[in-house]
Amino acid sequence: MSQKLMVKKKTTKDISFFFNPKAIAIIGASPTPGKLSSVILESLKRIGFPGDIYPVNPKYASINGLKCYRAIHEIKNDIDIAIIALPALPALETIKEIAHKVKGAIIVSAGFKETGENGKKLEWEIREIVKKSGIRIMGPNCMGIYDTVSKVDTFFVPKERVGRPMRGGISIISQSGSFAATIMDELASEGIGVSRVISYGNGADVDESDCLEFLKDDEATNAVALFIESVNDGRKFVEAASRCTRKKPVVAVKVGRRDAGVSAAKSHTGAMTGRYEIYRAAFKKAGVTEIDGYEGLKDACRIFNIYSSAKGKKVLIITDGGGIGVRIADACESSGLDVVGISKSARNRLSSKLPSFCAVGNPIDLTGSVTDEDYITALEEGLKDGFDIAIMAILWGPPHITEGLVDKLKEAAQRHNTPIIVCSPGGEFTKRMSRIFAGKGIPVFSSPESAVRAAVILTCIKTV
Amino acid sequence: MSQKLMVKKKTTKDISFFFNPKAIAIIGASPTPGKLSSVILESLKRIGFPGDIYPVNPKYASINGLKCYRAIHEIKNDIDIAIIALPALPALETIKEIAHKVKGAIIVSAGFKETGENGKKLEWEIREIVKKSGIRIMGPNCMGIYDTVSKVDTFFVPKERVGRPMRGGISIISQSGSFAATIMDELASEGIGVSRVISYGNGADVDESDCLEFLKDDEATNAVALFIESVNDGRKFVEAASRCTRKKPVVAVKVGRRDAGVSAAKSHTGAMTGRYEIYRAAFKKAGVTEIDGYEGLKDACRIFNIYSSAKGKKVLIITDGGGIGVRIADACESSGLDVVGISKSARNRLSSKLPSFCAVGNPIDLTGSVTDEDYITALEEGLKDGFDIAIMAILWGPPHITEGLVDKLKEAAQRHNTPIIVCSPGGEFTKRMSRIFAGKGIPVFSSPESAVRAAVILTCIKTV
Repeated sequence: MSQKLMVKKKTTKDISFFFNPKAIAIIGASPTPGKLSSVILESLKRIGFPGDIYPVNPKYASINGLKCYRAIHEIKNDIDIAIIALPALPALETIKEIAHKVKGAIIVSAGFKETGENGKKLEWEIREIVKKSGIRIMGPNCMGIYDTVSKVDTFFVPKERVGRPMRGGISIISQSGSFAATIMDELASEGIGVSRVISYGNGADVDESDCLEFLKDDEATNAVALFIESVNDGRKFVEAASRCTRKKPVVAVKVGRRDAGVSAAKSHTGAMTGRYEIYRAAFKKAGVTEIDGYEGLKDACRIFNIYSSAKGKKVLIITDGGGIGVRIADACESSGLDVVGISKSARNRLSSKLPSFCAVGNPIDLTGSVTDEDYITALEEGLKDGFDIAIMAILWGPPHITEGLVDKLKEAAQRHNTPIIVCSPGGEFTKRMSRIFAGKGIPVFSSPESAVRAAVILTCIKTV
Repeated sequence: MSQKLMVKKKTTKDISFFFNPKAIAIIGASPTPGKLSSVILESLKRIGFPGDIYPVNPKYASINGLKCYRAIHEIKNDIDIAIIALPALPALETIKEIAHKVKGAIIVSAGFKETGENGKKLEWEIREIVKKSGIRIMGPNCMGIYDTVSKVDTFFVPKERVGRPMRGGISIISQSGSFAATIMDELASEGIGVSRVISYGNGADVDESDCLEFLKDDEATNAVALFIESVNDGRKFVEAASRCTRKKPVVAVKVGRRDAGVSAAKSHTGAMTGRYEIYRAAFKKAGVTEIDGYEGLKDACRIFNIYSSAKGKKVLIITDGGGIGVRIADACESSGLDVVGISKSARNRLSSKLPSFCAVGNPIDLTGSVTDEDYITALEEGLKDGFDIAIMAILWGPPHITEGLVDKLKEAAQRHNTPIIVCSPGGEFTKRMSRIFAGKGIPVFSSPESAVRAAVILTCIKTV
């Protein structure tokens, strides 16, 4: 039997079935609106999961128009994933029952390691089942998977409260389910797409390293964003992350920089910093770009949907508002980007082609009399001077610029191999224009600082 | 005559008439939609300026339903402010003509110092007229005034593109007109009010120091936000700013940290830093809190509409999402705030009053099963432990929290003298809730980082 188990374990080392399931069982399914399992069933139907869904609960004959099974063994067909939304103890019992019937399970239930000693024991038992049976477990204490490719959604928060992003090229790996749900919700409202979002919770089995191994070969994923509280196996992480960064950009936010529980003990600060330093060193070794916080992670998601890297650090700034242009220049320089001057020949070309009121330098200030054409002229001529990134601060107060700038800029962007980042702070009109830009695949940021953070992220990525 | 001029000059040293005018003349008024003077006339009417508006242009008998005068001297009544929207040379001629007729003028026209030697001469002439006549000049090359108290709006950008904020307690002083317009627009769309917004442009006469002198005694202004590119008279600035900060908070963004034009000459970095260091020292001496950028200035405007300072740096974090709570704790600590542990007695009280699934520490994690009441219990009991600021990270995924939390939190906030900052990142539902919170006077921030920036700003302000 141990031979058989070993074989099974080997075949399931790969977790890709979580991201391409043909059949999903929901254990503890319920028709009661608002219950976790009910929300999950709704979500799976709404996202349009194309495979089979099997509700399992001895209390019901059917749920939400689907036949309900009394036990998983009554289901004749193969099942890839079981979703378990039961209290901790029944969840553990269920895992024992189904370990040989399914390839993997997502345990969304809380009540394990995070609750203390008893919970730790339960979680240890889960790991033992994994070792013996070869089943792969995501969770417990997680939101599971939101996947725009395979159309799986196990996030048990109603869409009315937490929006679901459209399909895009970013995959997000997060220990924290609430963090994953929150950024998903915000990305959805801003029209930023994702590929796969994975909330792996306590990580009893599947962890960030397993996810990185899968995503490195995932053609639907252009870049990976990590939200990490802690890593159990540092060596495994560095190896998996290194393999992934050789193929695509990986960025990470590390939270919990101080030791939990010793915050009042200020004398421990040195030790805390030391622990955080280990993470920083690991990121560096693996080629992972560390990002400072939620805002930065959102910026990364936005920029990586369009660009993956920049060739260097030379930034050209084009603006119609002097003050914002200067602020962008400051932020670039204090972030290590180079706002180099433009050459005499480029300056001459620009001066001859732009109206006389424009200030030709870096930034190029087109002033409030700017037209759509001026923006394109400044970009085309400026980029000839060997810049690695262009930040275009388009303020919408000037009356002569129009929605037509979107298509002109899109065309110009396609003629160049240089990332073009739009920075448009402002109110209603501006936000409407920004949505139009975003819809055409031009990344728009709503503050000088966020545009510069995005530029910095691109320059940190080794060209892959 | 010099005696007479000196007297006149003395009486007009104060610039408060700009912010309480009874009569405004628009020189070069035009009925042509889109022309600067036309937009300004529209803006004055739309905001409901309660005084008299006198269009002046020999070409027209009436404009927009108002009698149009051939020259300013045909107007019999006293005029406080003339708005001049003419090209540079005619603008200068006009100033000469009206210098003894009006208390002050706003020259929105460009074409002065910012355009080179010729423009510098024209601007020097303006200063000479000011010296001789006692007229006060705002501009040139400025947007002028947006004032929700006296209902003046000379910003020549149409409301359809640049929104106007409601009345609030923040006054903004900005050299850059586009910066002022952009942040006004964004504040308007987010429901953040302002008192007076002043774009003084080239500052030929009225400068940031004059504005600070006025705002320090302005009862409609609770706090002042400065956007500075350069200061002409450092001593005057430090004195004016010092007087202002003794009465109310002043925050500043300094842009243009490098010498303009020498960006390519990297060897000059030392000198550039030196110049910026002088500004930093001046801010410090004057008690001005320096803020790093557009995002920070927006955060300051939001928080100062509700709170003016915090007693200390001890921050209590309450959340329903562990990951976001930990990120806030990290951001607090890396910004110099203290996320101190809670006392044993407070911990006991909290544990007895909160459900058992809550993690009682700092952060207090109420988890996804949180109710409205749990938030209030955590806040009330937590604040008894002597915290200076509470940051409440309310994520709206948890199904049991409701809109009713707004009123409950408002009531609780009124019982305490401690700033309560809400942090709610998220999408559509969250943004709707945040608007309701903001409408009740609770400051809501859309990222962990912005909430922490606001907390830091409050702790930098000496209690006034």
